[in-house]
Amino acid sequence: MSAAAPRPPSGLAPDALLAEAERFLHLYADEHGHGPREREARLAEVRAEVARTGTYTLRTAELAHGARVAWRNSSRCVGRLPWRALEVRDLRHVTHPDDVFAYLMAHLHDALGGGRIRPVISILGPGVRVHNDQLLRYAGYRQPGGTVVGDPQNVALTDHLRRLGWAGGPGTAFDVLPLAIEGRGRVGLYCLPEDATCQVPITHPDCPGVGELGLRWFALPVLSNLTLEVGGLSFPAAPFNGWYLQTEIAARNLADEGRYDALPAVARALGLDLSPRRLWRDRALVELNVAVLHSFDRAGIRITDHHAVTRQFVRFEAEEQRAGRAVRGRWSWLIPPLSPATTPVWHRSYTDGEERPGYVAQTPAWQEERAEAVCPFTGRRQGAAAD
Amino acid sequence: MSAAAPRPPSGLAPDALLAEAERFLHLYADEHGHGPREREARLAEVRAEVARTGTYTLRTAELAHGARVAWRNSSRCVGRLPWRALEVRDLRHVTHPDDVFAYLMAHLHDALGGGRIRPVISILGPGVRVHNDQLLRYAGYRQPGGTVVGDPQNVALTDHLRRLGWAGGPGTAFDVLPLAIEGRGRVGLYCLPEDATCQVPITHPDCPGVGELGLRWFALPVLSNLTLEVGGLSFPAAPFNGWYLQTEIAARNLADEGRYDALPAVARALGLDLSPRRLWRDRALVELNVAVLHSFDRAGIRITDHHAVTRQFVRFEAEEQRAGRAVRGRWSWLIPPLSPATTPVWHRSYTDGEERPGYVAQTPAWQEERAEAVCPFTGRRQGAAAD
Repeated sequence: MSAAAPRPPSGLAPDALLAEAERFLHLYADEHGHGPREREARLAEVRAEVARTGTYTLRTAELAHGARVAWRNSSRCVGRLPWRALEVRDLRHVTHPDDVFAYLMAHLHDALGGGRIRPVISILGPGVRVHNDQLLRYAGYRQPGGTVVGDPQNVALTDHLRRLGWAGGPGTAFDVLPLAIEGRGRVGLYCLPEDATCQVPITHPDCPGVGELGLRWFALPVLSNLTLEVGGLSFPAAPFNGWYLQTEIAARNLADEGRYDALPAVARALGLDLSPRRLWRDRALVELNVAVLHSFDRAGIRITDHHAVTRQFVRFEAEEQRAGRAVRGRWSWLIPPLSPATTPVWHRSYTDGEERPGYVAQTPAWQEERAEAVCPFTGRRQGAAAD
Repeated sequence: MSAAAPRPPSGLAPDALLAEAERFLHLYADEHGHGPREREARLAEVRAEVARTGTYTLRTAELAHGARVAWRNSSRCVGRLPWRALEVRDLRHVTHPDDVFAYLMAHLHDALGGGRIRPVISILGPGVRVHNDQLLRYAGYRQPGGTVVGDPQNVALTDHLRRLGWAGGPGTAFDVLPLAIEGRGRVGLYCLPEDATCQVPITHPDCPGVGELGLRWFALPVLSNLTLEVGGLSFPAAPFNGWYLQTEIAARNLADEGRYDALPAVARALGLDLSPRRLWRDRALVELNVAVLHSFDRAGIRITDHHAVTRQFVRFEAEEQRAGRAVRGRWSWLIPPLSPATTPVWHRSYTDGEERPGYVAQTPAWQEERAEAVCPFTGRRQGAAAD
């Protein structure tokens, strides 16, 4: 391909792009009951566009279906039953970081819906990239002794934002990180207004001491580090949200020793017997899960639990089977980290595999930058030690 | 191979058998620091024996090491740290069912060791097979309405034993099954004397209602449906035991809806709030695990817990790495079914794979019989419906 030809966003050569486009357009036509004439007309149009320009443009309805099918295909997601309900915002014309930020604020507001939460995806224009892996993240500040204040998982992101110019927050365990939005060749930092960061304080229905620990979590999970791939085209800025499954918060984010490590404090708040054979860690874990469900329910924020969502997943599998489609699944991601053998997915087996349309993991922006920081004379990485 | 030549127990052709034998004898020599002369002398001996007889005989020390390494190689076992301590009983001369039974009773007695439990394997002679998948199993009686009294997992084994002539037990939820021992071309049924079937009544340290449910379990897990394969030779009758991990009993055998399904009764005994968002199933599960640990501890019967055993597994991995050996593992079997993300194995990844020496799954004896029940004239399976 000559330097002047417009590169398709996927970086695919025209032949490979066309093959992917045709595969998707057939899927689209099949699932919308299109006849041979309608199908052929659209394929001819796309072939001509690729021949003329090296790439092509999906219609909004096609893009929307692609985003929904990408959810349906997410082998690691146990919450796929409502895939048809994904609200797709076609923002392919939006490329300026200020505009991206404005649309993301609208996304957060509308997706929350006062707590009713609906699944939304915002598909942004070429050149846009959100550096944060989720729109709502707490800072992780590495301390001189090696410990971390905040969320240890976000230390690299926090450092990256500071290198980009962020002055840092007040230094609590729950400082909301600003967004780093790349577009039109520059990166802008945007602090989130308080009304965009709905958070739920965690309290326990029977034990006030758990509430006094000051734990909290965001109402909305909005993933922003996955590239949406549809019909051979890539959309690297396509943040989307569902609603939380309580185990994500209570059995991982707040519980993991490498995250907030709250189980010892929860166990003390509950006054548990701390001898090892009394399983205080397991008891505290269940009560933290009860607390998260209770707190979200009381705040009127939609949240599912691992029993309900796994039963729904079995319904999803049955629906897909009726539709003649194979369900891909990664068992290790589908089982919940709490009492997994009490849920139906534990007792079933799944075949993993990446399908398209799909959501594909990205390299974090700060790792890409490091990879590019190579001395143009010696070829050595800059800032890297000898070994 | 002519009909008169003795078949190696593995059924391997002499070349394949020799290759496997050499691989194992090198491993044995490596791990015992043997020099080239000693190693070559033994290899020459085995080659000559295979050339002469079509098979060969492992020395007792070699067989013992093979059985231990087979444990070390068990990718689904999280309790491999003490693999060197496996006590190996070389009973290859024992082939009569009555003698097999007597040795298995000695195995049960000695392995229990009054509660201290040590890992033991009894390697029996050619032609021997234990039809029970474990030496200690509770009957499962299918009722006219389709429900099961006892352990639903053992319905097929119970039916098989009845076809072999067992009259059935008293019909409680915990009737101990007799052993079906095959040897010298016949199958004998053997009832276990009470002193061979040590069982632990399950009580809860704080809630007497749990004890009133009458739950119980065996002290010893003795697996008897795996073929030991060492150096190309197969030992289909090689029952072995470790000690229980409490989740096997409390998070699967007694808890699974397809097994004893005790969680609803445990929840009621504990007086739990049964609304779904209060996670009664998860709370009951933890308390049943506490109860099993408490009951075994009180009875003086060795049992490990999922926190201790997974920490030990990480030590095992480190030991193996120091020895220059790769650890195979099946993540889905290594993680416990209770609070798995609170254990280190959840956060690690493993490569599965079958190594030799190894323990290899067998087809249940009653399925083999059914497969053989083919009409010699039509080739149709007998008793099978048209579809």
